[in-house]
Amino acid sequence: MRTVYTEDHRLQDGKAELIDGKLQPCFEMPKRAEIIIERVRDQRLGEVVPPQEFGQDPIVRVHKPDFVEFLRVAWGDWVKAHGTWDALPLNWSAPGMRRIIPEAIDGRLSYYSFDAGTPITAGTWRAITQAANVALTGRQMVTAGERAVFALCRPPGHHAGSCFYGGYCFFNNAAIAAQGFRDSGAARVAVLDVDYHHGNGTQEIFYERADVLTTSIHADPKQEYPFFLGHADETGAGAGAGHHLNLPLRWGAKWDVYKPALETAMRRIRDYAPDAIVVSLGVDTFEEDPISKFKLKRDDYSRIGEMIAGAGKPTLFVMEGGYAVDALGVNVVNVLAGFEGAAKS
Amino acid sequence: MRTVYTEDHRLQDGKAELIDGKLQPCFEMPKRAEIIIERVRDQRLGEVVPPQEFGQDPIVRVHKPDFVEFLRVAWGDWVKAHGTWDALPLNWSAPGMRRIIPEAIDGRLSYYSFDAGTPITAGTWRAITQAANVALTGRQMVTAGERAVFALCRPPGHHAGSCFYGGYCFFNNAAIAAQGFRDSGAARVAVLDVDYHHGNGTQEIFYERADVLTTSIHADPKQEYPFFLGHADETGAGAGAGHHLNLPLRWGAKWDVYKPALETAMRRIRDYAPDAIVVSLGVDTFEEDPISKFKLKRDDYSRIGEMIAGAGKPTLFVMEGGYAVDALGVNVVNVLAGFEGAAKS
Repeated sequence: MRTVYTEDHRLQDGKAELIDGKLQPCFEMPKRAEIIIERVRDQRLGEVVPPQEFGQDPIVRVHKPDFVEFLRVAWGDWVKAHGTWDALPLNWSAPGMRRIIPEAIDGRLSYYSFDAGTPITAGTWRAITQAANVALTGRQMVTAGERAVFALCRPPGHHAGSCFYGGYCFFNNAAIAAQGFRDSGAARVAVLDVDYHHGNGTQEIFYERADVLTTSIHADPKQEYPFFLGHADETGAGAGAGHHLNLPLRWGAKWDVYKPALETAMRRIRDYAPDAIVVSLGVDTFEEDPISKFKLKRDDYSRIGEMIAGAGKPTLFVMEGGYAVDALGVNVVNVLAGFEGAAKS
Repeated sequence: MRTVYTEDHRLQDGKAELIDGKLQPCFEMPKRAEIIIERVRDQRLGEVVPPQEFGQDPIVRVHKPDFVEFLRVAWGDWVKAHGTWDALPLNWSAPGMRRIIPEAIDGRLSYYSFDAGTPITAGTWRAITQAANVALTGRQMVTAGERAVFALCRPPGHHAGSCFYGGYCFFNNAAIAAQGFRDSGAARVAVLDVDYHHGNGTQEIFYERADVLTTSIHADPKQEYPFFLGHADETGAGAGAGHHLNLPLRWGAKWDVYKPALETAMRRIRDYAPDAIVVSLGVDTFEEDPISKFKLKRDDYSRIGEMIAGAGKPTLFVMEGGYAVDALGVNVVNVLAGFEGAAKS
């Protein structure tokens, strides 16, 4: 399996995120991707290739143009108002407040965000456009006939919606890739999100569409971030009714409850008969993850890869979360190698 | 004019608020009220009296019971999850997310808040119930016949809505007092909010009611916090249609533009013929305020007091914002003494 990777991800290197009442060093850090690419190389998973440039057109297929333009200019506007410390938003909409785009940069940060854990920095724009390019390059390789590709995106993307960022995510790399499959001829695309946190952005983007099936296994939003989406009764709406599947699990979930949930998701995906699968690959389900409360073990990730391979479909893995940095490489490559082993057998 | 005051406000003493991308020492600090009470005493404004206890009944007349109960238990639940560092929320609702109350304390903080600048601490519950008692005691004194009373509330209240806190505010002291006037026989009550920031909580609480006229002069929400409410076209709804007045002013406003806005508000209040006026008294319109961008001068506050007295109505002043700490006492007492002088003449 080939990996798409660029060191440009290092340009997203936030100083701090708000968590547990404090500004702490960002859990979403460059070292995450570095540990993973090192393991990819050590294990000889396959060739590592750089991304191509796709420009903004495939991005505005899933994100609103005003949101994309905001991300492009946000850092410059922030520096003019506040200097070169990372940009974090100030407040959000309470019930009854209105969606009117403010003029001031602080107000626009507030308008387009949903947490204070996702700093915008000098390098954010380049890093996030390159992460989208990584996903789109992987998509192109799969469309061209590769059985599976690993898009080592960073920063991650699945919390980013059509017009909002948060949860370390700016552009929804997986959604951009899924739309890319559609735009290059795939009739149906399935997204499987195995990140610990609910893929609220992906759900929002495709919620009213039948041409992209979205499925997510994640910590119950009653207990866990992002709290306000990801419940089992959210099954799609309008033309997309019946085309979204949430499988929330309670804190403490081990393989014995995770495996049946993944079987349910894979069954739904097989029934849907997609032309391609996009996997939002988070490994923050790991028992040692510092901000998560599932209890998967290293070997469980090999099983996840095998089960995904069982669908027998062209598959793009898109990197999402995972913050137990030292174990990240092992767990991610276990998924990918598990997939490869099962796909060849 | 008598002042209602208790040192219990000191129990709200947050360590930090998120502003300009950093956690900074809270601008809303105990010293604010101490400087003001010192000036009240120095200038012999009148007797200083302690608050009486009114319990939760008058609070749940304007705040939802589940919100009040959340504030009562929040600190204890936070300590169990995270220890004794101040509680700040993590994230908020993005478009399309759902209003379902989470189980986890982080999720409930997120559900009931709209910024990360309003820490909940060990003493918050006592401080905020006492601030409500200060307002209610002042209300009772005015109902009993005093021409005007100063409720030196801290923390402030006007950003707090029926079911959310933020902007340093938890209980909406001014709204609780206004409702208290209604519940003790006043047919109509007018609220005048002269804080630099829009009184979004007060607007939300009374927006569909005709028995409380709400008026607010503040920085344009296109430029300034809270950004998502406070526009000129918000004039009330339902039974309250026509009973809300927003007078947003652009950054840099001096007395020459502030005075006509206040005249407009006072004209509306006189036309409404209320039985009592509640003034949300913020002095962060001051030219030296560290987080605000209006340019009022010390003497302008005397004029504000005189103009409010011109309505000739029983008046309760409820303390809100103002962060140029050294000048706070002078500016606040200028309003109150200006009122007294005009009321006697």
